[in-house]
Amino acid sequence: ADIAAGKASSMMCAACHGANGIAIVPMYPNLAGQNAAYLESALKAYKSQERKGGSAAMMWGMAASLNDESIANLAAYYSSLSPTGK
Amino acid sequence: ADIAAGKASSMMCAACHGANGIAIVPMYPNLAGQNAAYLESALKAYKSQERKGGSAAMMWGMAASLNDESIANLAAYYSSLSPTGK
Repeated sequence: ADIAAGKASSMMCAACHGANGIAIVPMYPNLAGQNAAYLESALKAYKSQERKGGSAAMMWGMAASLNDESIANLAAYYSSLSPTGK
Repeated sequence: ADIAAGKASSMMCAACHGANGIAIVPMYPNLAGQNAAYLESALKAYKSQERKGGSAAMMWGMAASLNDESIANLAAYYSSLSPTGK
């Protein structure tokens, strides 16, 4: 996967998940240092709208515009960030 | 929430999410240092089975036995762990 491409497409994610992958509000998950395979699985579950509950519906819109390649790149990018956000 | 009670009830979680909250396989999420409010929301979405997709179904069984209090305690416990697992 292409981490730089993931970073480039992460602008819309950063609004809630933070520029460093630490979420701006505790209701949203931190993504920094999360496992890439899990992130891909989660993004695909949002894209297919199988993942419901909590603020899931907001993510449906976010994931709808992503294809498998951008999902892999985003997952690799956030997984590459330090879990502490520093 | 009661972090010690959360730790006590986390034995079954540790099998997949690791004793230190770092998942044993990349398909499962790390929980260490994750936001407590998000973890509560996720656990409730598994309990209600609203959250589907990926390995979600495995979590339905895990969450089924939890009540709101144990969910809050588990969320507080994992949120209190260092995100790097050390």
